[in-house]
Amino acid sequence: YFPLFIPLSYFEEEAEHVEGFAKEMAVVTHHRLEEDPGAPGKLRPAGRLAEPLIVRPTSETVIGKSFAKWIDSYRDLPLMINQWANVVRWEMRPRVLLRTTEFLWQEGHTAHATEAEAREETARMLEVYREFAETVLAIPVLTGEKPAEERFPGAVSSVSIEAMMQDGKALQAGTSHYLGQGFAEAAEIQFLDREGERQLVHTTSWGVSTRLLGALVMSHSDDDGLRLPPRVAPQQAVVVPILRGEDTDAVVAYAEELAAELGKQSYAGEPVRALADLRDREAPAKRWEWVRKGVPLILEVGPRDIAEGAAMLRRRDADGRSGESVPRAEIAARVPALLEEVQASYLAAAAERLRSRTARDIRNLDDFRRWFEGDDGDPNSGGFVRAPWSESPGSAGIMDELKVSVRCLPFDQRLEQGSTCVLTGEPAVVEAIFARAY
Amino acid sequence: YFPLFIPLSYFEEEAEHVEGFAKEMAVVTHHRLEEDPGAPGKLRPAGRLAEPLIVRPTSETVIGKSFAKWIDSYRDLPLMINQWANVVRWEMRPRVLLRTTEFLWQEGHTAHATEAEAREETARMLEVYREFAETVLAIPVLTGEKPAEERFPGAVSSVSIEAMMQDGKALQAGTSHYLGQGFAEAAEIQFLDREGERQLVHTTSWGVSTRLLGALVMSHSDDDGLRLPPRVAPQQAVVVPILRGEDTDAVVAYAEELAAELGKQSYAGEPVRALADLRDREAPAKRWEWVRKGVPLILEVGPRDIAEGAAMLRRRDADGRSGESVPRAEIAARVPALLEEVQASYLAAAAERLRSRTARDIRNLDDFRRWFEGDDGDPNSGGFVRAPWSESPGSAGIMDELKVSVRCLPFDQRLEQGSTCVLTGEPAVVEAIFARAY
Repeated sequence: YFPLFIPLSYFEEEAEHVEGFAKEMAVVTHHRLEEDPGAPGKLRPAGRLAEPLIVRPTSETVIGKSFAKWIDSYRDLPLMINQWANVVRWEMRPRVLLRTTEFLWQEGHTAHATEAEAREETARMLEVYREFAETVLAIPVLTGEKPAEERFPGAVSSVSIEAMMQDGKALQAGTSHYLGQGFAEAAEIQFLDREGERQLVHTTSWGVSTRLLGALVMSHSDDDGLRLPPRVAPQQAVVVPILRGEDTDAVVAYAEELAAELGKQSYAGEPVRALADLRDREAPAKRWEWVRKGVPLILEVGPRDIAEGAAMLRRRDADGRSGESVPRAEIAARVPALLEEVQASYLAAAAERLRSRTARDIRNLDDFRRWFEGDDGDPNSGGFVRAPWSESPGSAGIMDELKVSVRCLPFDQRLEQGSTCVLTGEPAVVEAIFARAY
Repeated sequence: YFPLFIPLSYFEEEAEHVEGFAKEMAVVTHHRLEEDPGAPGKLRPAGRLAEPLIVRPTSETVIGKSFAKWIDSYRDLPLMINQWANVVRWEMRPRVLLRTTEFLWQEGHTAHATEAEAREETARMLEVYREFAETVLAIPVLTGEKPAEERFPGAVSSVSIEAMMQDGKALQAGTSHYLGQGFAEAAEIQFLDREGERQLVHTTSWGVSTRLLGALVMSHSDDDGLRLPPRVAPQQAVVVPILRGEDTDAVVAYAEELAAELGKQSYAGEPVRALADLRDREAPAKRWEWVRKGVPLILEVGPRDIAEGAAMLRRRDADGRSGESVPRAEIAARVPALLEEVQASYLAAAAERLRSRTARDIRNLDDFRRWFEGDDGDPNSGGFVRAPWSESPGSAGIMDELKVSVRCLPFDQRLEQGSTCVLTGEPAVVEAIFARAY
């Protein structure tokens, strides 16, 4: 764990890095408060610091200082660390979970003897993020290289996973950076190689943040509230007893038994997270609370269900609001498969959205404009455009005007010989993903 | 999880609270940097905030605002939350792990309908901390009430666990506070009781921090380095192969098998954390590294040990540096009991120190002075004094002069009728623990 506060001078050692973050740095300038003589009862900052402290927007600079102390020879490489921490990047227009001044993340930092090894690590971590997003969060993503102007400040190469939200906008959901030797030079991170020569290390950094929670909410929710993929749902199945009349004890017992039985089942390698909701509330209110909270399976049990030896099952991924009466004897055994079905259905829906709302045949500016201008106000229009790009300065102005950006240069390039830029008609040099983005 | 930055105005709502923390608050006053026209290439703070933000020293004020929104009626009580977070309290004289400007902690916050229930919660959490310190960290502690001047700012009552370090000084290792209704009043945390009357809740807060790591280091270490209680040791047993001559493959295999076998044993309900250290270093260097890092059990294996069907066992809690040759067939089965012995030996040594270095028979100022003045420079003198106290203002000056404070008023009061204050000779009202403290 590295410090929250980083001296301003650390940042000044890497010019590109500090330039990239200077506009969003929270600055600590004082270390106490004192009575304000001009406003009785009010306090004002006092104890001015000789050097301002930056609340970390990211930790390359401070971690680099430690790497320089820890690394002597090739035997100390690769050096790979990770911290879970809060970081601050000042936001003038915050948006809940997506762009917040403070956010929580993990940041990994590694140092390697060679460029090849560092680039391999950069790719490996992106693959970890891709696999996690798709398998666990049920969010399909594109992988690719960020265009130069969206690189991490100071990086040689930034790669990302990009997801499509339900409104067709892109969300960068995780990044991995090959930092070259720039940070190593700034922090003097050197090692003696096998031949006894002094060399600079090659560094990487990579991270995902609480923004993934925003991606989760915006990928799967519907008008009734959250829909949580079973793999990450805090409760995977909730049993709601319908308590009316005099049979309440029997119903409570039935609900508790059922929840206990579900908890003995296993899904994705862990016991099923099942809960009997015995709180002193009306059953419909409780059911709707769990619907809103996105619980994958809700089981309602009342005197009639007990009489029939059954329970009313509602799947959160099902259309409509009706349930299915399932024989009590079958429920527990069916739950793991049901959870897997719900998980798969969310991924399939998101994948179908990504597929159907990515235009692959737009080849000129008129069609490009139409695609994105039609987007305004219509949540079912717009999306990604995958098309040839020239990387020319002229294309930037058009994108600004349309509030579109290049999200990534996908790894699976399929640029055809002689293609022209969808924006300017100039010769294309790469295939790009264009989109509006959060 | 609650925000790192708390508006200054939140603190101003609870006068005693803000007064207690004002002298150690880090203040964010700006949200960006700009080129300094007076110093080319240098940056200076810009974007002054309308209201300064405090980097949280603790979160009662901001959490109270949420409690006020979340609590409507008695049905919402008790409300109990916990967050793991970093906090900042500016330190002019930092001391590693014990007093650092930033530290990591958990902070629990609860709201209750009645004083009795809130006080019960305060006591319950202190007991959680006591049990954890003793059972897991092998640190015996005293429990008691803090004297009025050491209460948490704004609390009605603060209780703590107090440990004795090897130099006889006290370390407050965890606290729990009954906050009364003051914070509830400031943040307007009200509820409708069963009779439909509007009431203020009673709140508590409690926390332990990375300071516990300092307590761990200072309780058990010796001149060779750390000594980690097995319950918290990242590696409980390390196998160091002695690789010389030509038998290295066989020795590596023997070491790996042994470590794998140890990993199948169970200690304190978890698999034994065993490691074969196969790094390309000399065996003595590796052994000393693990000694310094406090690993409870080190097993060295070389060609001679293989020939004898044995391994050289070194217990970190043993006197001297010699090992014991243990037949290979016995090692794995013995490890759980050995770990428990090491754990118990650290607790016993710390408990004996606490017992033998707590003076219970000092009854006048001369003896009191002698106890603490003899302390200077001699690591084996000094410690705690348990004696009657008047709580009178006159006693404070004497304590200041001797750099002693009342650590707590122990819960197991044994004040005899007619006792007089050890410091002033006035009638005593309570039995206190006096000590120098970190």
